[in-house]
Amino acid sequence: MHTVPLARRASHLSSLAPAPVSHENIAFDSGHAFAGVLPDLITEAADALSLGHRLQTLQYAPRAGLPELREWIAGYMRADGASVTSEEILITNGAKHALELVCRLVVDEGDAVVVTAPTYFSAIPILCSFGVEFIEAPQDHLGLHVDALAEILDQRARDRKPRPKFIYNVPDFHNPTGVTMPLERRTALLDLARRYDVLVVEDSPYRKVRFEGESVPSLKSLDSDGHVLLLGTFSKLVAPGLRIGWVAATASIVARMAQLKTDAGSCPLTQRIILEFCSAAGRLDEHTARVQAAYRSNRDRMMAAVARELPDVTYPRPAGGYYLWLTLPSGVDGDDFARAASEAGVTVIAGSRCFARGDGGHPRNHVRLAFSHATHDQIDDGMARLARALSSLVGRTLATQNG
Amino acid sequence: MHTVPLARRASHLSSLAPAPVSHENIAFDSGHAFAGVLPDLITEAADALSLGHRLQTLQYAPRAGLPELREWIAGYMRADGASVTSEEILITNGAKHALELVCRLVVDEGDAVVVTAPTYFSAIPILCSFGVEFIEAPQDHLGLHVDALAEILDQRARDRKPRPKFIYNVPDFHNPTGVTMPLERRTALLDLARRYDVLVVEDSPYRKVRFEGESVPSLKSLDSDGHVLLLGTFSKLVAPGLRIGWVAATASIVARMAQLKTDAGSCPLTQRIILEFCSAAGRLDEHTARVQAAYRSNRDRMMAAVARELPDVTYPRPAGGYYLWLTLPSGVDGDDFARAASEAGVTVIAGSRCFARGDGGHPRNHVRLAFSHATHDQIDDGMARLARALSSLVGRTLATQNG
Repeated sequence: MHTVPLARRASHLSSLAPAPVSHENIAFDSGHAFAGVLPDLITEAADALSLGHRLQTLQYAPRAGLPELREWIAGYMRADGASVTSEEILITNGAKHALELVCRLVVDEGDAVVVTAPTYFSAIPILCSFGVEFIEAPQDHLGLHVDALAEILDQRARDRKPRPKFIYNVPDFHNPTGVTMPLERRTALLDLARRYDVLVVEDSPYRKVRFEGESVPSLKSLDSDGHVLLLGTFSKLVAPGLRIGWVAATASIVARMAQLKTDAGSCPLTQRIILEFCSAAGRLDEHTARVQAAYRSNRDRMMAAVARELPDVTYPRPAGGYYLWLTLPSGVDGDDFARAASEAGVTVIAGSRCFARGDGGHPRNHVRLAFSHATHDQIDDGMARLARALSSLVGRTLATQNG
Repeated sequence: MHTVPLARRASHLSSLAPAPVSHENIAFDSGHAFAGVLPDLITEAADALSLGHRLQTLQYAPRAGLPELREWIAGYMRADGASVTSEEILITNGAKHALELVCRLVVDEGDAVVVTAPTYFSAIPILCSFGVEFIEAPQDHLGLHVDALAEILDQRARDRKPRPKFIYNVPDFHNPTGVTMPLERRTALLDLARRYDVLVVEDSPYRKVRFEGESVPSLKSLDSDGHVLLLGTFSKLVAPGLRIGWVAATASIVARMAQLKTDAGSCPLTQRIILEFCSAAGRLDEHTARVQAAYRSNRDRMMAAVARELPDVTYPRPAGGYYLWLTLPSGVDGDDFARAASEAGVTVIAGSRCFARGDGGHPRNHVRLAFSHATHDQIDDGMARLARALSSLVGRTLATQNG
């Protein structure tokens, strides 16, 4: 793998993104892709729309997805250690749609669902819309704290409360914290899931966006008895705009979820474009390396900027993914900071948005920054603005305390 | 408009579709597009994926849809008489997704919803999944029988039952019956909706697929106070595979429905392809004329085939759309006929699937045939098979009665 040329190439392409203008908003809240790594898909689209494919790509697609794409994904997952066949893959309109379908299949109003504290903030309203009760599992720098969750589930069993319908987690480069569960935690989580016969929903958008170190086996690859539903997406692998994700689960779950799709099948045109892109020899590997190089470079730039501009802030160093989860100096409220940042022209996600339970007594001094979308100049400029926002906020806090 | 050359062109292009093979299934059940009218979208896709558009088409889209497409649709609807602004348009993943979002917005479990008897069979499971109570409105050759519905709603009011959340209907080239509501029925329906303050969901996929006569104003164009939500789609206008539809409703309903979308925005790539196609001078008009000519020709072929092969069968003559709603000879069960047809190599939709209430005491002797997808040869071949299926069924019925 030629890391240096690829990084240079990504850096060159970053000139496609709008140049930072001092008064322009800088989006550290965005999970958008870095502009420089959006691929050229014109040839793939022309193939997909040619007479040879048009009867497939412009008609309704099978609800479960194009058979060839399901086969490709199954092979892709097998190469990553999971024993999956094409019948165990359901194509969806992105991973969030996959989560919605999982809920439609298994959740009744009032059912309990386990999420980490904090968790992916866009999952919260989807789960809420099904009327779930949230069980929050604590996290540390190794991800979901399985022993603590076991105690919670044991206590619920003693209280004769129903077991949760599923455990939702992002084990690789967790959103928002960036941490990755080591193997021991993963096997312990699966043991717990088996013991209580609870499904595990493994949301895995960032798995291939790894900057260093070895992959840890996916929960799905460790799953011997159909407890794990993996949610995958092409949003991070290829491009968010294609709106194609998938669920890997047992064939019977896939068949039932396909019946719940009201969309008359996900878009066959974008499915075929993805298939053409992914099955071209070497193309996805080369693209993945470009994505990794670009985001590694962005992460490094953002870590350097934090060290320079916000020396009192800490975060777990992410080995992949899109995000830094900042712990602000004690006493600084993440909501206040997000507001001050916005006034200074930088949008960030207040940590409070990432906790499913408002009554959880969670720390208030967090924000999530995305390093995925911004250019290096925007990262530097944005962090300087955040430093000013933090200073003014600390100043105001001191003034209030002294006033 | 040059109808003859366009019809000839469409007929020429029908050679793209697979030639009928005697043992091959013929799909009269399918709402797929006629292969010969699927447009060439390679140029539009190349534009949409060019550097000038890539930052829009490969990133996440705004949840409500691309502003330019919302504006184009609003203009398209204004040209059709409806006073609509771009803020009143929500882009969805097809019209069925639009119906699901309407339900998510307004339906609570146990709420009543009005549908015609029969109604669009794919709407039934979507509505069922929200736990609705169905109120069935009778229909005749002029569509939804508004006076009869008024009596039903009056009786419910006297019984102090809650009013329905909405009235779902396909006023143009109704699915499955093919009938079109005249203006007087439409104004009467809106008067009734106003009187009871009930929303009307106007599902309008076939509006432009008109073969003869003048358009009747859409319910949306007659709506002065925001009671009508129109569901539109590009599946019939351009191609089903693009999976883009829309809702036209008040700006406040659109804003609330956008919040309920879990899809992180509908696919911006296919939205842009549609926009490029529709906004090219004359292209959509020319394409619409081709679609009308192809489906008119298919309808005429199927009507001739029914007259020749199934002389005892009747149906309302559709002035547009995709379907013939057959009334089989009295005593012939539509489910039995669909099974016999399937054995003979023709798939049709049994009429029973199109009634929302199993306890409605509905006539059993109906089936829906689609003339949209099949070639002329398949229409002739398929109808001869249906005639044999009907003969064998009537023979069997007589044998049973005599045995």
